[in-house]
Amino acid sequence: MNNTPRLLAAVDMGSNSFRLMIGRVDETPTANGPASQIFQVDALREPVRLAAGLTPDKYLDQPARRRGIDALRRFGDRLREFAPNQVRAVATNTLRVAKNASEFLIEAESALGFPIEVIAGREEARLIYLGASHDAPACQGNRLVVDIGGGSTEFIIGNGYQSKLMESLYIGCVSHSRQFFPSGNVDEYAMKQAELAARREIQVLVRQYRATGWEQAVGSSGTARALAELIELNGMNDSTAEHGITREGLERLKRALIKAENTNRVKLTGLKADRIPVLPGGLSIMLGVFAELDIERMDVTDGALRLGVLYDLLGRSHHEDMRTVTVDQFMRRYGVDRAQSGRVRRAAQTLLSQFPEPANERREDNLALLGWAASLHETGMSISHSGYHKHSAYIATHADMPGFSKTDQARLATLLLGHAGKLGKLSGSGRFVDWRMLFSLRLAFVLCRRRSDVALPDIRVSQLAEALDEGFTVRLPKAWIEANPLIEYSLAQEADEWQRIGKRYKVIYD
Amino acid sequence: MNNTPRLLAAVDMGSNSFRLMIGRVDETPTANGPASQIFQVDALREPVRLAAGLTPDKYLDQPARRRGIDALRRFGDRLREFAPNQVRAVATNTLRVAKNASEFLIEAESALGFPIEVIAGREEARLIYLGASHDAPACQGNRLVVDIGGGSTEFIIGNGYQSKLMESLYIGCVSHSRQFFPSGNVDEYAMKQAELAARREIQVLVRQYRATGWEQAVGSSGTARALAELIELNGMNDSTAEHGITREGLERLKRALIKAENTNRVKLTGLKADRIPVLPGGLSIMLGVFAELDIERMDVTDGALRLGVLYDLLGRSHHEDMRTVTVDQFMRRYGVDRAQSGRVRRAAQTLLSQFPEPANERREDNLALLGWAASLHETGMSISHSGYHKHSAYIATHADMPGFSKTDQARLATLLLGHAGKLGKLSGSGRFVDWRMLFSLRLAFVLCRRRSDVALPDIRVSQLAEALDEGFTVRLPKAWIEANPLIEYSLAQEADEWQRIGKRYKVIYD
Repeated sequence: MNNTPRLLAAVDMGSNSFRLMIGRVDETPTANGPASQIFQVDALREPVRLAAGLTPDKYLDQPARRRGIDALRRFGDRLREFAPNQVRAVATNTLRVAKNASEFLIEAESALGFPIEVIAGREEARLIYLGASHDAPACQGNRLVVDIGGGSTEFIIGNGYQSKLMESLYIGCVSHSRQFFPSGNVDEYAMKQAELAARREIQVLVRQYRATGWEQAVGSSGTARALAELIELNGMNDSTAEHGITREGLERLKRALIKAENTNRVKLTGLKADRIPVLPGGLSIMLGVFAELDIERMDVTDGALRLGVLYDLLGRSHHEDMRTVTVDQFMRRYGVDRAQSGRVRRAAQTLLSQFPEPANERREDNLALLGWAASLHETGMSISHSGYHKHSAYIATHADMPGFSKTDQARLATLLLGHAGKLGKLSGSGRFVDWRMLFSLRLAFVLCRRRSDVALPDIRVSQLAEALDEGFTVRLPKAWIEANPLIEYSLAQEADEWQRIGKRYKVIYD
Repeated sequence: MNNTPRLLAAVDMGSNSFRLMIGRVDETPTANGPASQIFQVDALREPVRLAAGLTPDKYLDQPARRRGIDALRRFGDRLREFAPNQVRAVATNTLRVAKNASEFLIEAESALGFPIEVIAGREEARLIYLGASHDAPACQGNRLVVDIGGGSTEFIIGNGYQSKLMESLYIGCVSHSRQFFPSGNVDEYAMKQAELAARREIQVLVRQYRATGWEQAVGSSGTARALAELIELNGMNDSTAEHGITREGLERLKRALIKAENTNRVKLTGLKADRIPVLPGGLSIMLGVFAELDIERMDVTDGALRLGVLYDLLGRSHHEDMRTVTVDQFMRRYGVDRAQSGRVRRAAQTLLSQFPEPANERREDNLALLGWAASLHETGMSISHSGYHKHSAYIATHADMPGFSKTDQARLATLLLGHAGKLGKLSGSGRFVDWRMLFSLRLAFVLCRRRSDVALPDIRVSQLAEALDEGFTVRLPKAWIEANPLIEYSLAQEADEWQRIGKRYKVIYD
């Protein structure tokens, strides 16, 4: 290890603001090997209010897109010296739901200069807990973390650094404020309705969460931080010795808002202008959280998602990739035949390794993704054997897969959908397809179809020199193929299938 | 039990022919209670050749539809005195894949006078085994049943009456003959290609099936019966003492076909005119089966699917409904919270029971379907919590559900998709929706949302008298709802949701 401090960066494209956190990794030697801690060295915040640019039919409007791109360009500037494996950019609820998200993301990635991953609600929850558990006050026993975002709210119970229960609900301070307080007017009735709507969503998890229990409740978002500051700075807690958010404090804040009648007339110490429009929605959700989960007091931490992203990134480089754990869990949950998926995985990776190193891509990332696809290609058989590749792709698209971004999941799903059957479903689909990976997986699938442990011969593959990605060549020993007429037949079928989508596929026996 | 013999009827709408089997149930008293056996008392066969009317883009053409309707009208005549619970009509591969199947089925049901169920490949396999195991020679140990149909081939290994492995592959004598022998020309090369194509499909199951093993191989379809007859009548077996299909017999039959050069010139004793066009396809698949599964000899039985349908129907009336077993298995496989699904089931059934008996429908069938929907409504949580109702519906649509027809599964899926969230997705979807059932399930879901065992009050529901199915009334005790403001809020939301699709929803507290 050299003496240059190691830096990691997290970009959090939230529904309310975009934020950049840069952390320094400090390694401390301990009896069990070095322990790593991350300390914040820089932070940028851009009040993009992306969720406010979501039209009723779920399209991101042009001004919001512009604000987002401008913010990312500034972040990109700051990150110019960073290598790809030092940066992880994640986007949350607004980009999960916006119908033109993928179009926006292309522009966004080019502005930032790094790939951006849209993450699912429960993956967001996992990362939030990971961050909060490194930042919140130490605690014996279980910890509850509640993260009220702009478009979704995450609830996690964990112990130590490990999350146990995770849930993401579609309530958020931006969407709730727009729905119940559209012009900023606040009265008793609107507050009641907003709180009930929040409680109605939260009640689905109450029984399980209360049964699990917690010693400490932590609010981890900008909303929690803002509520705590307002309550503390305006003396709304029962005693000035009390910190964080209390039930009494929330009630007093609610009375103050109702008395002011409109958010624009609220006069409170410490109220920031850009927090005003989302205050009543955020407050009513927090009131719902306190009521349903019967909370009296809540600690506050900030930047949990970004800190979690950094610790997760640190884990990946320390060979503790959460994605490997998830793939292993899925193989168990869906009863995958490990012997067969192992055969396909080894064959596919051997084939992919024969292609030259692709520009701008890390070979080990591609080999890992291909390996996960091979491991999961039969998960859909748990639903039905016929058309199982479609079910495998469905699961990879929709399942909660801790450690995987939505982007990872989409790439996986494409490989699973394409590993068998017709190719036409992919070539015209608008999906991004890594043809070399798909070629390797399909060929491995054909070679291992007999599900037996017979050793494969030396198989050499290459891309057509004249037009990369437009065709492939497969060379096999003539003697071996003569003993395996079914493989010969299947390879002829495979060649036809690739030619049907306009790619060349040459099989040579020598 | 009275002395009139009890009759049951099975209609089998196969890809090659439509058949009707009428069976008599004989009850024999034994030490373990009465044992039932079914004896065929009548059979009709109509050479509809439905698969031959499938256009390349998978539409059933008009002549094939006409042949089918005419056949069903004659069957309907024969069944005029039968009650609905005495008849089960099933359709297989061609109607599984035809894009205009549902349109055809409406006309077909009216011609037959009974509902028709399209069944999945594995359900077909289960029923075939059930029939074959009652009809084939007795056998110690495992039995392999292979059923080469017009559009699909089923492979089952079972023991006694119980199937253990089931698989349905997309190879059939009609489709294979059309693909490899389009003008009836037969030569060495085409035969080789056809056999390899069949082997390529079959090889996916070889390893597992061989590992499980069998004592007896049985061919159960018209194809097997026809091949056995040709081989026996033309002395192609090694010795005249040998019955059924042998490897040597298949080889000699192949030589005879190749020698004749075209199916129209084949001169063999016992060759029926309507079997000629599908002979080379069926033969090449059987050659593939013998080669891949290393079979030397195969017994033959006929009518296995129809007999299986009759035994299954008998089981349903004897409280051995396979569907109950399947629902229970699914609750286990997908980790359903049984306490919660039980609450929702009891509440939903109590609500549905308050509606008057619907015309032409059996109340117990509807209560059973609603109960299964409640039991399975949370299966989708195994994939992801967010949008789990869509995943539950996906599983119900695509899973192999022994005992359930595709029609049952579609009705289940509609209830699962509609039990939560917006109703608009159903009202314009062209799906058949039983609104009373959906109303009962949604209301039960709202009432049980807190997942606790608190007793519900007396809730009375009814349809609007002026326009059935166009609106509902819910009456609850005022005192109870005042203590449950969240339910009040949810019912107001529920009323809004129904009004959004143009139905009335009146909530009365008294």
